[in-house]
Amino acid sequence: MFSLEDTSRVQHYASSGAFTLRCTIPDNPDTFNILTSAINQVAGHIGPVSSTGPESGHKVRDVTVYLSEKSQLDKLLTMTEPIEGLKVVGITDGIDRIIEIHRRGSIEVVSRVPLKSQTDLRMLYTPGVASVCEEVKKNPAMAWELTGICDRVAIVTNGTAVLGLGNIGLLPSLPVMEGKAAIMAEFVGVSGFPVLIDTKDIDTFVETVVRIASGFGAIQLEDVAAPACFEIEERLKAKLNIPVFHDDQHGTATVVLAALMSALKQLGRTPEECSVLMLGAGAAGYAVSLMLHEFAIGDIVIYDSRGPLYRGRTENMNPYKQHLTEITNKNNQKGTLAEAFAGKDIFIGLSRPNIISKDMIASMAEDPIVFPLSNPIGEISKEEAIQAGAAIAADGRDINNALAYPGIFRGALDARATEINMSMKLAAAEELANMALPNELLPDILDRAVHKQVAKAVAAAWQRA
Amino acid sequence: MFSLEDTSRVQHYASSGAFTLRCTIPDNPDTFNILTSAINQVAGHIGPVSSTGPESGHKVRDVTVYLSEKSQLDKLLTMTEPIEGLKVVGITDGIDRIIEIHRRGSIEVVSRVPLKSQTDLRMLYTPGVASVCEEVKKNPAMAWELTGICDRVAIVTNGTAVLGLGNIGLLPSLPVMEGKAAIMAEFVGVSGFPVLIDTKDIDTFVETVVRIASGFGAIQLEDVAAPACFEIEERLKAKLNIPVFHDDQHGTATVVLAALMSALKQLGRTPEECSVLMLGAGAAGYAVSLMLHEFAIGDIVIYDSRGPLYRGRTENMNPYKQHLTEITNKNNQKGTLAEAFAGKDIFIGLSRPNIISKDMIASMAEDPIVFPLSNPIGEISKEEAIQAGAAIAADGRDINNALAYPGIFRGALDARATEINMSMKLAAAEELANMALPNELLPDILDRAVHKQVAKAVAAAWQRA
Repeated sequence: MFSLEDTSRVQHYASSGAFTLRCTIPDNPDTFNILTSAINQVAGHIGPVSSTGPESGHKVRDVTVYLSEKSQLDKLLTMTEPIEGLKVVGITDGIDRIIEIHRRGSIEVVSRVPLKSQTDLRMLYTPGVASVCEEVKKNPAMAWELTGICDRVAIVTNGTAVLGLGNIGLLPSLPVMEGKAAIMAEFVGVSGFPVLIDTKDIDTFVETVVRIASGFGAIQLEDVAAPACFEIEERLKAKLNIPVFHDDQHGTATVVLAALMSALKQLGRTPEECSVLMLGAGAAGYAVSLMLHEFAIGDIVIYDSRGPLYRGRTENMNPYKQHLTEITNKNNQKGTLAEAFAGKDIFIGLSRPNIISKDMIASMAEDPIVFPLSNPIGEISKEEAIQAGAAIAADGRDINNALAYPGIFRGALDARATEINMSMKLAAAEELANMALPNELLPDILDRAVHKQVAKAVAAAWQRA
Repeated sequence: MFSLEDTSRVQHYASSGAFTLRCTIPDNPDTFNILTSAINQVAGHIGPVSSTGPESGHKVRDVTVYLSEKSQLDKLLTMTEPIEGLKVVGITDGIDRIIEIHRRGSIEVVSRVPLKSQTDLRMLYTPGVASVCEEVKKNPAMAWELTGICDRVAIVTNGTAVLGLGNIGLLPSLPVMEGKAAIMAEFVGVSGFPVLIDTKDIDTFVETVVRIASGFGAIQLEDVAAPACFEIEERLKAKLNIPVFHDDQHGTATVVLAALMSALKQLGRTPEECSVLMLGAGAAGYAVSLMLHEFAIGDIVIYDSRGPLYRGRTENMNPYKQHLTEITNKNNQKGTLAEAFAGKDIFIGLSRPNIISKDMIASMAEDPIVFPLSNPIGEISKEEAIQAGAAIAADGRDINNALAYPGIFRGALDARATEINMSMKLAAAEELANMALPNELLPDILDRAVHKQVAKAVAAAWQRA
């Protein structure tokens, strides 16, 4: 806990985005409602609220707020000052609670069988287990029935592109891998094993994954930098007969497409009549472009840090960007980013925080769809996008790949698919869009039934093929 | 279920060792006691017993029996014939129940944190997890606190020496790896991840383990054939600064030594005055020899399939057997196996079923200690050993390495040990011997407190050094 004057420490932890305000507050719902409305007005999200002990007529409450920038906190504190009866008496950076969640890891391995008697032990381990080994030896296909492979996914990374943090290395990436595993375990009962692979060399990475792959039912590539991630995925797919799925590409693309399907439905538009401006040609940008192309979107113009992708560009290219130039940018447009916004129907940002302006949004076609998805802070805030004329805006908080990958893996494993192909991803996106409430883009990520439905749709898509 | 005449199917599953006898039995405890005594007399172990429906005056009961050979089953059936009121109406091979235990694997990954709200999700995953990544990035040592590494062991194998089944391959070995992981999870809260490494090449195996090691707090080598296992372990130890422990060697050696300590105490003998005949110079034989040497045993003479290990032997040697000739067989004895038994105080078998005779045991010194540990069937049965004059006999069912490795890993992880050294293994053996009841060799494997005590002793031994 630090005083209201000393908010420098808050700045340090800005990327955690979590702060707990300790407030004294009158014992009535009205004041609390005014506080939550203030949090909404600064584009914050309210987290857990706890009471830490009643005072005469007042309660002491710890209110956790998720914010992306220190300026939001300053604004919120200014807004709370005039609220009658409310007093913010201290601020704790939320990192303490986040750290607690991750202490000793967010996942663990447990036994699925009891171990209460010698019999249990003799069935689980020697001598009983020998019979199971012999069954698998006689018929290797039985490994899918008699071991955990049917539920087991290796979550492999080399730590080169972790969240928005970049090439932070292996160990610092592990909390992310564990978080992804925890989500799969909780949502769909898939057992994700984080595997940190200590190499930046593509050959070595591929070789290592191939060598350990037989113990898994699928491989999830995670936080590997582009363009290495494309080649790694391609080569692993060619070498393995189990699904290989780079979530930063395909999980993201699936959820973006689902949100876009919902948005188009709400606005009564077809994909064919829409043009897209995409910012970012990394892992996510590449996969989203391919999926939008498959979705028969009118046209896409893609910008990376060096400008537009066009046929004939030579600077900072790779075979994947090259491929994009062949299926996008029909008019081979080459102007500035600001020029590129003019008349576009859809903006999708997969790049860096705060790099586009309200003017750019204002220059788009009427009622544009704006998805500034850079994490944890968008290319522009949703609020500014709406102010500048966006009909629908959604950011990285709304469009979360954890909505897609658990069901996609569950479905692929259930169907014993040997790959996760475009039809399966499209089926997942359609299913997600169909499950969204009429005024929402996506369904509730916490609803386990949503993930089950995605799994069913993905398995059915594999079986249809 | 098959009829009593058709016991050929039983033979097939002899290695599972589990059969369920469906009996009609009078509703009184006496008849059941006579049955259990018959099971004891054929050296069987009784497993779960269930009632499947009362009949008038009789019950139908399914009695599971663990046996190692079909001859025991035949003997048991003969013995049950005259029991009044009892009728064995059918036999099921116990494999069905064992298979059920292992179906879809005996372990799974679970989330250690709840996922009930958006806040939970935002703390576990983005954006909250970024703060955890940054903490580890700032101070890599924090990975031990903020990830699951502190509880995580890779259980690595290439499937070349699985139980008594030999080189059965990768997938058929997986039920064993899962069983070992389930035992660690259940007994000491360690998360074992099975990792199947698809290579028989030592260099490749070592390289692969090194490349994935950073995500683990320790490495358990498992079911890798000798002598490759020795070189692999040596090289991994040299390359990694986390414990590397080949359970087939050191887990076995620790429990054998613990049982021997208890036996010597019961007989009032010192190690120095005892001579050992050991049969088997594989992974377990090598490690047991080194540990007995450390324990200052009088002398050891080791036989492998080609005869005694002696200085000057050239046939079928390797550097590890060579090393054994330098610290054992003081008189450089070269006779037949039968001759080698004469006058020995202790026999330890780590080789093949049913290859020694009562005469051999009878030729040993007075009141010998006989450990025929071959699995699942000993070099000689305990009963025959006792009949031939053994003062104490114990087989592979009594001496189970699962008594040692969970506590050893827990202790090494808790102490953040960078290796598992001889003092730690000796400390584990002493602790196990000390916890055994006065007339037992070893404590109860199902007692979680036993594993905790081993862990404490192992951690203390590391800290003392």
